[in-house]
Amino acid sequence: MYTLWIANKNYSSWSLRPWILLKTLNIPFEENLCFFENGKSSHDKFRHFSPSGLVPCLVDGQQTVWDSLAICEYVAEEFPQVWPQEKRARAWARSASAEMHSGFMALRQQCPMDVSRQAPLAVISPELQDNLNRLQQLWQEGFEAFGGPWLAGNEFTAVDAFYAPVAFRIYGYQLPVNNMVKQWVDRILTLPAMKAWREASLEEPHIEH
Amino acid sequence: MYTLWIANKNYSSWSLRPWILLKTLNIPFEENLCFFENGKSSHDKFRHFSPSGLVPCLVDGQQTVWDSLAICEYVAEEFPQVWPQEKRARAWARSASAEMHSGFMALRQQCPMDVSRQAPLAVISPELQDNLNRLQQLWQEGFEAFGGPWLAGNEFTAVDAFYAPVAFRIYGYQLPVNNMVKQWVDRILTLPAMKAWREASLEEPHIEH
Repeated sequence: MYTLWIANKNYSSWSLRPWILLKTLNIPFEENLCFFENGKSSHDKFRHFSPSGLVPCLVDGQQTVWDSLAICEYVAEEFPQVWPQEKRARAWARSASAEMHSGFMALRQQCPMDVSRQAPLAVISPELQDNLNRLQQLWQEGFEAFGGPWLAGNEFTAVDAFYAPVAFRIYGYQLPVNNMVKQWVDRILTLPAMKAWREASLEEPHIEH
Repeated sequence: MYTLWIANKNYSSWSLRPWILLKTLNIPFEENLCFFENGKSSHDKFRHFSPSGLVPCLVDGQQTVWDSLAICEYVAEEFPQVWPQEKRARAWARSASAEMHSGFMALRQQCPMDVSRQAPLAVISPELQDNLNRLQQLWQEGFEAFGGPWLAGNEFTAVDAFYAPVAFRIYGYQLPVNNMVKQWVDRILTLPAMKAWREASLEEPHIEH
């Protein structure tokens, strides 16, 4: 059985990605939660289980896989439903997931995931607006090409998991997005596993930033 | 045949990754080079061929794949030699590649790739030193686990391609690294494709930063 190391459910957007993927696809795993250090780097603490000092980290027997995207690919070798089954949708899903993995900096920095937050953002910077525009383009592309209701077709796959933290951000910061994105946000937020993550996150100790 | 869109060979570290992979594995492709705009964002220019406005971007008939890591996975479906054949080495290679894809920020920002550069860096910041320490850990892990001389065993794979720009940085900025890393840097810099990339980069117009 896989063991997935994660950090605070309220804050760790990277942890959410493989967690929600495995839960939603009913792939069994054991969860190990290790809280961030309050006010200092958690690298040294996390190095006990993760070679990069970062979460998430998947352990499968003697094998350690220490990055969210690498975890998806590792699990996909055993559970191909991680990615869309159609080649064209799979290539799109991998491109969009990798774009989130290395991009959307304004969204990630100006709206850090805080599941408990429910207050509008005072200012939408031009860089954040660019990110929101790009999100809306992606949604339109995905829905037009693959028919929805999930990003790459009629099944929830890793690309939905990669954008799952964006749903919490759009909801919590009340970010302006079009109805197409809103519908996807509503859909993913009502997944049983997203509700369970949210409920658990609200029980956690808060960290002052 | 694949078409690979790239930007300036002197500066575009992300372009180098799939380019050196395809060349070194003798996977045929056509190269389309589109220079960065001097002093302004190239997003609008690149959006003509890349949906994210970023390079590299692979086009295969009707299919567009617009991220370096997604390109590796797409090509790997047809050419499995992109990743190590052994499962354990493949998981390690994917983790290390994904760590570079989203990390090593100090190295990327403080030592942007400039193939033509040959001058030591004046100051090694603590964050850059952390990145260099992590690189050395990765090299040690890879060589110990898989026997070298490449990062994940005896074949050049995508993980070597993902760290190929690091070789130009270590060489050009004269960064302090141990002999294990130096040997890998020497090995990759003498690959015919790396030499060809370097030669082409020196012919390109320079950009003032």
